[in-house]
Amino acid sequence: MNLTLSPPYYAVIFTNTRTENDDGYAEMAEAMVALAAKQDGYLGFQSVTEDHKTISISYWKDLSSIKNWKQVTDHMAAQRMGQEKWYQSYTTRIAKVEREYSFEKE
Amino acid sequence: MNLTLSPPYYAVIFTNTRTENDDGYAEMAEAMVALAAKQDGYLGFQSVTEDHKTISISYWKDLSSIKNWKQVTDHMAAQRMGQEKWYQSYTTRIAKVEREYSFEKE
Repeated sequence: MNLTLSPPYYAVIFTNTRTENDDGYAEMAEAMVALAAKQDGYLGFQSVTEDHKTISISYWKDLSSIKNWKQVTDHMAAQRMGQEKWYQSYTTRIAKVEREYSFEKE
Repeated sequence: MNLTLSPPYYAVIFTNTRTENDDGYAEMAEAMVALAAKQDGYLGFQSVTEDHKTISISYWKDLSSIKNWKQVTDHMAAQRMGQEKWYQSYTTRIAKVEREYSFEKE
């Protein structure tokens, strides 16, 4: 879970509540993570799910990397159609990480 | 889970992996959330836990609010001592949210 990076960089914070319809969700989520990792400027990914609530954060070198990634995901969404079946609600936030500090038990 | 705010504002992203020692943890976490909500500049809080991994995000009006909140938590930590018993590792990130967009099913 511990991931340390060097600011400044960007975070895409994706918080969502899912519907009860899990059909195809796990496969899509796995494919998205694998695809993100192949993009230029990708720095890392963290995700935690509790019941049908998830906070996922992907980290990126700069806004340009995020813009490219958004084009890829928009294209996938268009191909897939109806992805809203999975989500009751979601919010995406684009944030510039200015500082970070970590602790790790020895 | 859905929380919508108006950028720009700040997020404190706290990712952690806990130890097996849960003694007093839930009480501390609950108290911290209640206390955060009383601070000037507090905008909201979201947290998801899976096994012993958590992503918690608190949202703040500006850096000054975060600085004040950090002083409160540092003071609490000093009083409490040994909070590292709860955490195997953690990272705190201070990030400026520049954009956000939301979806909510009707």
